[in-house]
Amino acid sequence: MALTQFREILLKSRPAGAPGVENFEMASAPAKAPAEGEVQVRNLWMSVDPYMRGRMYDRPSYVPPFELGKALQGGAIGEVVESHADGFKPGDLVESMFGWREGFTGPASALTKLPQTGAAPQAFLGVLGMPGLTAYAGLLEIGKPKAGETVFVSGAAGAVGSLVCQIAKIKSCTVVGTAGSDDKCAWLRAAGVDQAVNYRTAEKQSGLLAAMRAATPNGIDIYFDNVGGEHLEVALEIARPFARFVECGMISRYNDETPPPGPSNLIYIVGKSLKIQGFIVMQFAGLREQFHKDMGQWMREGRIRSEETIHDGIASAPKAFADLFSGGNTGKMLVKLV
Amino acid sequence: MALTQFREILLKSRPAGAPGVENFEMASAPAKAPAEGEVQVRNLWMSVDPYMRGRMYDRPSYVPPFELGKALQGGAIGEVVESHADGFKPGDLVESMFGWREGFTGPASALTKLPQTGAAPQAFLGVLGMPGLTAYAGLLEIGKPKAGETVFVSGAAGAVGSLVCQIAKIKSCTVVGTAGSDDKCAWLRAAGVDQAVNYRTAEKQSGLLAAMRAATPNGIDIYFDNVGGEHLEVALEIARPFARFVECGMISRYNDETPPPGPSNLIYIVGKSLKIQGFIVMQFAGLREQFHKDMGQWMREGRIRSEETIHDGIASAPKAFADLFSGGNTGKMLVKLV
Repeated sequence: MALTQFREILLKSRPAGAPGVENFEMASAPAKAPAEGEVQVRNLWMSVDPYMRGRMYDRPSYVPPFELGKALQGGAIGEVVESHADGFKPGDLVESMFGWREGFTGPASALTKLPQTGAAPQAFLGVLGMPGLTAYAGLLEIGKPKAGETVFVSGAAGAVGSLVCQIAKIKSCTVVGTAGSDDKCAWLRAAGVDQAVNYRTAEKQSGLLAAMRAATPNGIDIYFDNVGGEHLEVALEIARPFARFVECGMISRYNDETPPPGPSNLIYIVGKSLKIQGFIVMQFAGLREQFHKDMGQWMREGRIRSEETIHDGIASAPKAFADLFSGGNTGKMLVKLV
Repeated sequence: MALTQFREILLKSRPAGAPGVENFEMASAPAKAPAEGEVQVRNLWMSVDPYMRGRMYDRPSYVPPFELGKALQGGAIGEVVESHADGFKPGDLVESMFGWREGFTGPASALTKLPQTGAAPQAFLGVLGMPGLTAYAGLLEIGKPKAGETVFVSGAAGAVGSLVCQIAKIKSCTVVGTAGSDDKCAWLRAAGVDQAVNYRTAEKQSGLLAAMRAATPNGIDIYFDNVGGEHLEVALEIARPFARFVECGMISRYNDETPPPGPSNLIYIVGKSLKIQGFIVMQFAGLREQFHKDMGQWMREGRIRSEETIHDGIASAPKAFADLFSGGNTGKMLVKLV
């Protein structure tokens, strides 16, 4: 049944420092009837991701900044309610990037129908979606883990980090992850991570470096970075020669208006022949089919646990987003709309 | 004619900060007669290289630290004066790593006979030796330059940097180099570098970043780093997406007892999908034959100029080494012994 009105979340102001609910506002937009080639979609799930923070700055990047007064773009899973496009019919589940809205009317060409896999629809925003491919491609294509190597994952309880840890275990690596609470560390251990370090506790004791040295007495071969800052400095210190650093994110830095200085030990890049490589998931789009095949199989075999932190209703999206930066999620952060 | 006495340069004390002549002393050692399988060599040329600074610290690295009271190890070219080893006869020119000595008696198995190429013997310490292979392999294997790309080389007038600039020109790149004097910049322009920036002048004017932005209005695709520090920060700033950073050295940092903080803009590694990779030349030993072939041809075609800065006599080695850190060389720094 077609809808007449959609609520959406607009960017009201660009956050200075940590984002808060005051940076967003809700609005309503009339739901247009689909023209030829278009469909109307009611969203079921919205994705809330750290990378969106970067688009809230008004500066050039690999994607343009969000515009003030416009709905935030982002991943969503929805259900077709009306279709004037070949190949789409009411009830079809689709993935879109039209963002933080209860629904939309748009061109069918911009939508991806979900494959029939038996997985929950929202898995395509997490373990089978962008965070999953990020973890899979980043670890395997840049990190290139070999059996027996030691992998250090920061932000290990996050949407990407938690999958990196588990894929590294599947690849027969020793895995050490950091997270910001004892609950998250317990979750990581239950998911098979060899050692989980609560970095907040470590900072109050002898420091993150000492904790990580104790956890990785022989050093690390791969660092999968979601955090940056002190975590990166510690990783440089404990890296073995020829270690690979997969630079996926630096969430500790996203809210800095004036970025602090970087690690003082970058000279290890030369002395230890390190490779430090950033990437965006789009460059690995060609791996999607293999990724779905591998990840689907690992899930069926019970070798991958995908945790979700769920907020209810579109009005909760700003709070969910702000929570990303204070450690409010284990696994994928989602907003459930229906 | 066999010798009876060799002078050598010992490490007297570990430098605190910039190395000075007081950190070294000269000694004499008796010249042994060669045993079976050994040769006696009189050195003609000694190599003076920035990487040796790292071995003066007492800390673990990819090569062990120099020992106090022992002759410094380093590359040298010499002439066999007496041989008890198959395949070596008086007059043969050989390369060794026995260091800063007028000569030595040692196992023939540790020596490499110079190929007959018509090149001057000392070229095998520079353009046809370790610095040449470092430039060749670092630029081509890690930087992977494509025609039309822009390459930024710091320390561009040094032994490695000057060759990187010229190989990048041969590969049809636009090349911008930094150096510490107008004379060096003039030399770089004469060698075909598109733009040479005197970083000392730039720092007194509107800064290195402004100078490099003006020199590379479309950004850079490759940064070949010999300097680190501010140069690295500037390179991160002007890097284009997917730029490659070849981390060959960070001479600006070698004398820091307490390293200063690093660049505050490392987050570009993620946002611009950069690859930052350190290396040691030994990992590219397998390229030596191809390197000799290519470099030899480029030299015969007059496409590579190899500059040398020459100090005379073994007693001058400590001064030559100290000069490396105050910009005292254009091209390869050498000590001529005979």
